[in-house]
Amino acid sequence: MTSIKLLVPRMPHRTALFKYLRRIDESLWYTNFGPLERELRARLEEKYGAHVVTVSSCTAGLELMYRHVYDSACGEPIDESDRPSIALPALTFAATALAAHREGLRVELEDVDPNEWTHPAVAGFGLPALGRWVDAAAAFGEQQVFPGQTAVFSLHATKAVGAGEGGYIVTHDARLAEKFRRQTNFGFDGGVSVEWGTNAKLSEYAAAIALASLDAWDREPWLRLHDWYKRYLPPTVTQQQRPRGVYPILAVLVPKGVLVESVVAKMAAAGIETRRWYCPILSLHPLFFGRKSGDLPVTNDISQRLIGLPYHLFLTEESVACVCGILNEVIRSLS
Amino acid sequence: MTSIKLLVPRMPHRTALFKYLRRIDESLWYTNFGPLERELRARLEEKYGAHVVTVSSCTAGLELMYRHVYDSACGEPIDESDRPSIALPALTFAATALAAHREGLRVELEDVDPNEWTHPAVAGFGLPALGRWVDAAAAFGEQQVFPGQTAVFSLHATKAVGAGEGGYIVTHDARLAEKFRRQTNFGFDGGVSVEWGTNAKLSEYAAAIALASLDAWDREPWLRLHDWYKRYLPPTVTQQQRPRGVYPILAVLVPKGVLVESVVAKMAAAGIETRRWYCPILSLHPLFFGRKSGDLPVTNDISQRLIGLPYHLFLTEESVACVCGILNEVIRSLS
Repeated sequence: MTSIKLLVPRMPHRTALFKYLRRIDESLWYTNFGPLERELRARLEEKYGAHVVTVSSCTAGLELMYRHVYDSACGEPIDESDRPSIALPALTFAATALAAHREGLRVELEDVDPNEWTHPAVAGFGLPALGRWVDAAAAFGEQQVFPGQTAVFSLHATKAVGAGEGGYIVTHDARLAEKFRRQTNFGFDGGVSVEWGTNAKLSEYAAAIALASLDAWDREPWLRLHDWYKRYLPPTVTQQQRPRGVYPILAVLVPKGVLVESVVAKMAAAGIETRRWYCPILSLHPLFFGRKSGDLPVTNDISQRLIGLPYHLFLTEESVACVCGILNEVIRSLS
Repeated sequence: MTSIKLLVPRMPHRTALFKYLRRIDESLWYTNFGPLERELRARLEEKYGAHVVTVSSCTAGLELMYRHVYDSACGEPIDESDRPSIALPALTFAATALAAHREGLRVELEDVDPNEWTHPAVAGFGLPALGRWVDAAAAFGEQQVFPGQTAVFSLHATKAVGAGEGGYIVTHDARLAEKFRRQTNFGFDGGVSVEWGTNAKLSEYAAAIALASLDAWDREPWLRLHDWYKRYLPPTVTQQQRPRGVYPILAVLVPKGVLVESVVAKMAAAGIETRRWYCPILSLHPLFFGRKSGDLPVTNDISQRLIGLPYHLFLTEESVACVCGILNEVIRSLS
């Protein structure tokens, strides 16, 4: 029924994995910081000009980062109201807040910027964020990491560079990187747990897939995709303010007065998959009820009108034109 | 220098992965409970006759299990002394205690059985455990899971069946399995976090490797290895009381009065790698200083005399005879 899908991961074909799988078979090294993990780390460190710690998922990396934020902010808390708080956007994927919540931080959900729809703590929609501690899950394309910043990226299959599951932390602080790395391996130093840790190691297999993804990485097709949508999006929708760049998703706002649920349904009837990204907003998830500061007017407005359109590297200019044409018709029919 | 290694993982060769990698390329499904994860789960559920939840590592699975133990035991704790406690052995891998500690449980380290060197909470050395909540990381070969029990297994590369990194939880409680599964995927139910969760999903790639490992699984070579050591171990060492079976490691105790460090050094000089498993014991790791109930006389005695010998499927009967012969000479020379 669906002829144009919302998201189609572009992961490396198995033939692109063989040279890395051969190296695993030759080294007999399967995890625990083996040659492929080290190569992946070195390539990412060169890209960012900073220290990199690989992790089993972006969420695991966020947990390490927020645990550090918690440890830095306080000693032992006495009760709920004494927990250090962290400001996060209400318009984001749940993992951001779940990870902070797990590590003892009191999540305060804030509004987002009215033009960019973003917040300094999260590289929302792949736009770079300037906060001190950044969830950069989907921002492989555009997020740089400046001195003083620490950012966590995802290697999930839906990202521009993926490993299936995986992630990495980028920081300029060598001691912090060393601590995070130790914590991904049971807090071990000299064979004993000198501090808390877990297992968040990236296997050699996952590193192999990430390396093959990096080999195939190319900004150009993403920029073309960006340009096509710029060209064909109907003037009736409100676009996110973002420069030409590499982003993992594209969302627009339908006009006020048009029911976004109806747009989703009519697009689906026309064979086009769409999604109301980050809906419901986090303050409406049972785990985070009421954890908001104020009324979040921008977030509430955006959330009621936002629709994600097909955005992936299997799209052609014709299919983008088709999506935008049908979107235009659908909105007219509902206005 | 080392001619006989302590542990050599036997992971599937890349050619054994191809049929599964082809399925990934055909389905374009890379993680989030895809066809390979479902097949792995189904095969494990058949093996155990119980519900299975795959996880990104055994440690991640233990964290989910201990969080449930914590939630079941109490409401909100007021201070450290009010935390519910959990009894764990001091003679185990750190992950057992780290996971319980992370989830808010007060770890109490206990002594182990003088003959089996084990404790009900951990399938130590791969021996099956009968506790209610079991860390069965290394016990793929022998641990069954009875009604009322919940056990977490590892798919780490060093285990009898591996995926590089990975693990799974086995329980007879369908609702608990459903909860754990939800928690591996951000606590999502109907697209919102209805409860706490993280990302502990096993990717399709990791499932592919685990499936190929399961395909190659065979008890026989493990039983042969067990028999060879039974035949050749010198009478001067004390053996762990355990029936013929599949175990991931082999450890023995050197006689009282013989310095185990010297045995390790002399074995190394003879080209044989050994390891003092679980040394130092957990109550000597900085994170768990003093978290013990009593003096742990058995654990202290065992820990001072325990030496792990080479144990993996690349060993031949001749190499086992050689290891045991040299061990015998080394002990005599030090007695």
